[in-house]
Amino acid sequence: MDFNIIRCARAILHVTDLDASRNFYVDALGFIETEADDAHIYLRGLEEHTHHSLVLKKADEPCVEALGYKVSSSDDLKALSELFEMKGFTTKWFQKGEQHAVGETLRVQDVSGMPLEFFAEIDSVERLLQRYDLYKGSRMQRIDHFNYMVSDVEAAFNFYNKDLGFACSEYTDTENDDIWAAWLHRKQTVHDLALMNGKGPRLHHVAFWLPDPLAIIHTCDVLASLGYGENIERGPGRHGLSNAFFLYLRDPDGHRIELYNGDYLTSDPDFKPIRWDINDPMRQTFWGHEAPDCWFNEASAVLNVLTGKKVEQKQGKLKQHKPTFII
Amino acid sequence: MDFNIIRCARAILHVTDLDASRNFYVDALGFIETEADDAHIYLRGLEEHTHHSLVLKKADEPCVEALGYKVSSSDDLKALSELFEMKGFTTKWFQKGEQHAVGETLRVQDVSGMPLEFFAEIDSVERLLQRYDLYKGSRMQRIDHFNYMVSDVEAAFNFYNKDLGFACSEYTDTENDDIWAAWLHRKQTVHDLALMNGKGPRLHHVAFWLPDPLAIIHTCDVLASLGYGENIERGPGRHGLSNAFFLYLRDPDGHRIELYNGDYLTSDPDFKPIRWDINDPMRQTFWGHEAPDCWFNEASAVLNVLTGKKVEQKQGKLKQHKPTFII
Amino acid sequence: MDFNIIRCARAILHVTDLDASRNFYVDALGFIETEADDAHIYLRGLEEHTHHSLVLKKADEPCVEALGYKVSSSDDLKALSELFEMKGFTTKWFQKGEQHAVGETLRVQDVSGMPLEFFAEIDSVERLLQRYDLYKGSRMQRIDHFNYMVSDVEAAFNFYNKDLGFACSEYTDTENDDIWAAWLHRKQTVHDLALMNGKGPRLHHVAFWLPDPLAIIHTCDVLASLGYGENIERGPGRHGLSNAFFLYLRDPDGHRIELYNGDYLTSDPDFKPIRWDINDPMRQTFWGHEAPDCWFNEASAVLNVLTGKKVEQKQGKLKQHKPTFII
Amino acid sequence: MDFNIIRCARAILHVTDLDASRNFYVDALGFIETEADDAHIYLRGLEEHTHHSLVLKKADEPCVEALGYKVSSSDDLKALSELFEMKGFTTKWFQKGEQHAVGETLRVQDVSGMPLEFFAEIDSVERLLQRYDLYKGSRMQRIDHFNYMVSDVEAAFNFYNKDLGFACSEYTDTENDDIWAAWLHRKQTVHDLALMNGKGPRLHHVAFWLPDPLAIIHTCDVLASLGYGENIERGPGRHGLSNAFFLYLRDPDGHRIELYNGDYLTSDPDFKPIRWDINDPMRQTFWGHEAPDCWFNEASAVLNVLTGKKVEQKQGKLKQHKPTFII
Repeated sequence: MDFNIIRCARAILHVTDLDASRNFYVDALGFIETEADDAHIYLRGLEEHTHHSLVLKKADEPCVEALGYKVSSSDDLKALSELFEMKGFTTKWFQKGEQHAVGETLRVQDVSGMPLEFFAEIDSVERLLQRYDLYKGSRMQRIDHFNYMVSDVEAAFNFYNKDLGFACSEYTDTENDDIWAAWLHRKQTVHDLALMNGKGPRLHHVAFWLPDPLAIIHTCDVLASLGYGENIERGPGRHGLSNAFFLYLRDPDGHRIELYNGDYLTSDPDFKPIRWDINDPMRQTFWGHEAPDCWFNEASAVLNVLTGKKVEQKQGKLKQHKPTFII
Repeated sequence: MDFNIIRCARAILHVTDLDASRNFYVDALGFIETEADDAHIYLRGLEEHTHHSLVLKKADEPCVEALGYKVSSSDDLKALSELFEMKGFTTKWFQKGEQHAVGETLRVQDVSGMPLEFFAEIDSVERLLQRYDLYKGSRMQRIDHFNYMVSDVEAAFNFYNKDLGFACSEYTDTENDDIWAAWLHRKQTVHDLALMNGKGPRLHHVAFWLPDPLAIIHTCDVLASLGYGENIERGPGRHGLSNAFFLYLRDPDGHRIELYNGDYLTSDPDFKPIRWDINDPMRQTFWGHEAPDCWFNEASAVLNVLTGKKVEQKQGKLKQHKPTFII
Repeated sequence: MDFNIIRCARAILHVTDLDASRNFYVDALGFIETEADDAHIYLRGLEEHTHHSLVLKKADEPCVEALGYKVSSSDDLKALSELFEMKGFTTKWFQKGEQHAVGETLRVQDVSGMPLEFFAEIDSVERLLQRYDLYKGSRMQRIDHFNYMVSDVEAAFNFYNKDLGFACSEYTDTENDDIWAAWLHRKQTVHDLALMNGKGPRLHHVAFWLPDPLAIIHTCDVLASLGYGENIERGPGRHGLSNAFFLYLRDPDGHRIELYNGDYLTSDPDFKPIRWDINDPMRQTFWGHEAPDCWFNEASAVLNVLTGKKVEQKQGKLKQHKPTFII
Repeated sequence: MDFNIIRCARAILHVTDLDASRNFYVDALGFIETEADDAHIYLRGLEEHTHHSLVLKKADEPCVEALGYKVSSSDDLKALSELFEMKGFTTKWFQKGEQHAVGETLRVQDVSGMPLEFFAEIDSVERLLQRYDLYKGSRMQRIDHFNYMVSDVEAAFNFYNKDLGFACSEYTDTENDDIWAAWLHRKQTVHDLALMNGKGPRLHHVAFWLPDPLAIIHTCDVLASLGYGENIERGPGRHGLSNAFFLYLRDPDGHRIELYNGDYLTSDPDFKPIRWDINDPMRQTFWGHEAPDCWFNEASAVLNVLTGKKVEQKQGKLKQHKPTFII
């Protein structure tokens, strides 16, 4: 591979009411608002030295415009573009200046139909990690990963693992040795990207990293105090997979946000991916709690990077799988 | 009132398998085993200077033998005995030495049929609060309160509040201004005793206090590691009522144990009891999570202090056990 | 005793710059400002249902005007007044309305020369315990205790223990069995009042209770972020005495504030006070750290309740202020 | 560069009493003992899938035998060997099997005289991350970094940065723009290696990562409970540099161990190293606490990889070891 994808870097979400979004993300969750205009809010976490990791864009209906990955240099963009074209994907370029705060950008629909973008440059801003006086709500630190719901996990797995060089940290296997879900990473954490079988392409969630487990408990308390109790969809709990201490929220437009703490270092090339049986009840929730149906069924529609239209969805190839517990 | 009830002090639970109980309470939850014989295990928390706060007694079926309250002196026992007899309750005395580690004890069935005992003396043992090397599992600190499910909450409320001098910190009210549940205390915490409407008399749970919120999260992790995931019934979560950060467990015999952290000081006589509407979704769970049906329906049967037989149960006088959420 | 002192309830501190004080107490530490005027700021913690627990009063020099205790009723005030007069102390009364938000108040200089006040009534305000959206800085919960530096600890001990009915939870003893320090309480925590040998009468510190240990670490981080690093005098650390996880701060006028978490329940009349040897290095700091000299030598001067003049100070009767460690 | 150093991987420390070491590392700190024989104890953290990260080797006097780095493959070892020989360093090889649990190993004295080793293979063992029932003491997770005290920081910086490809995350600069200290990393954390000016070559400390800040506080409590209070040398506190919440311990032989939590992601090649002025009091300790002299003056001697003799030490080229605070 002659390119280096660094990490997942930003999500562009379409939302219908910027004020409602700001109340949720900035006032309640404690994201830092780097900048905003009539049509956008640019948000980042306290640890981030980059301009933003979340763009909320005013639109008529909630959707995912693009999921952005940072690469090392503009040469990487060229090499990626060549790879995509060789494989028959149509790409689209934004020149520097066309997207606020971000350099030259390559967009492409991935093998599952997810709208990706790649860029090497993003404006630097003051990192606020040691401005503890600004910590509030969830004490939001940084973007961590995306979770895609796709109809063909195996195809997506091969695309990211073989073509783009993502390593696998953990995966869920069916009785027939089909990969039902996979945790893939470029940076040295458990994931930049998780794939799960289901109606897709859809974005299941964007995940952000918090500094300690109490930050998750405090987030619940703050959300409830502000009347956002119903936005807490699942958790807090511990995933068996990834060992994350998690909380799933739904934003005012229904986009799902995961907040979590935990993780482990995945620096070693000889680390063997951890296999989970799809029927292991500790896989989804280490403590045995059942996830609500909506967590399995609902996700955000995504846009075509060329046409701007919604991408059509297909059912997951594998059977739907909410684990059944005998409690 | 010419007696002084200090606090809830111990529960005597019948269990069917002492080894299974020890695995759960000592190895997993980290209770300190003060002493044991063929028929009993005596347990205490790290903060407790008293011999035990939980007695597990070998029996053919799970039951609650007695819920013990500590009083200031033997004079208090006499005064309590006179009160009960005047009110027509039949009492039973154990002389010092008849119960291991506990002094002279007065037993009586309360107005709801719950088996109570009162004593002034209990053996002193080394307090292990600063033996941090012994902290494990939940880092169990001390007994905190009992929760009774009773068919007539108002009658029970009046008994404890007017006759025995318990103060009310919080309560749940129906649309008709009937008390559906109440939090009552003698010591200066939110409760020594909670009452809730339901089929009773039954013991809903015994609660123990943990040193910090992370101890609750770690308890879940340890329980899951040891195969006790299914013993986690509800939580972790925040109660609106009492502000407790809670976790409900079922022991190997199905007795319900609450572990919690939070609470507040209730020293002031001019503190006004906090009223919660029964339909307020934040009452039960501040974050909006629904409790499982079993939490509302299942509880431990109790014994008659005179006959040793199970006390017959009646349905709760008020309807609507479980709040309905629109999520 | 025919009166009932509930707990320590408020401190009135003279400060020289109200804005500087507000920056420190409200913006950095997260106290709730209930009310203010040109000459006062009234502060409370998130758990408190009373109007304030700390009054900052504009003055030319830093001083302690009074340390207030809450009693059950106005009858208690009369009984206390009779006791003081019988013992030869001169008392001073404020009628309801003379002090903002507080009812009828009895002031008196204690046996050590400390300026006390007693009142039964204080305005009720909204308790913000479940307004987690307002939690910031230290997540300040409630006033916990005063620490007096006095020249004759034994005399002070007898006054509070025998005359006023404070129970002793822990104490420090010299080789000659002289009480060098004592922890005394009315409410069921380790203390409402600590006494320590030294140049006095002076107020060593006012202590406030925080909800968990991480709140103390976050307080340090927030203080440092805001340029208050030099206001951190000692800690965080663990006291052997009281088991408190502590942090000592100096406010902009040099008044010492303790923030802490930990404590234990002191409800039982048969709890035996814990004796610490003055040479036990784990007494002061369980982990063995040495306290800085200023912590032992500096404290706030106090005013005479009748004249408003500073009370003259005497050296402590016992020697050896600071334990010597061999590290 | 045609080799890939993954991360710091293990330290081999000579200790004089294996039982004393086991009491400290295993019983108190909670390291997992993978294996031991008469002359060695092999230890790892709960997150580690590799056989060990710390080898304690019985010897007559405390010393550092080697500091090991993991590389991707045996080709990397060859490439490194060629680099060292080209630069005039003498290398030494261990074949697979010569060192327990570790594959082919290349040893070399670095430009400062520190004894390094490089290997690609180390035995895999069960990762205990989700065996929460085994968590005790500090809940030790994994090795994080080494800190060298060297006489010529600039020479060492160039060696690691330019020759070995370590990136710089933060550094301390003198008034004359001399690098006084530097934080260098291969894995995507703040460091695998820190360099500081001083008498050297010596190992200042080996650092291990803990799962949350409370684990550090609990470590202090456990150490004090077990009589190890005097082994706590510095902290807990926050470093300005690296933002680590730290604790420094001295093991029974005087080797310094850092336990810490915090850190941040250093995945981005465009992250600009953070410069700290040597006179900035928040650099060393964000909260302003002064470090004890011993922390600046004492460190572990190191051995020559060829002769097994102690390496001679030189004074640091730059002056001013310890920041002066005006508190």
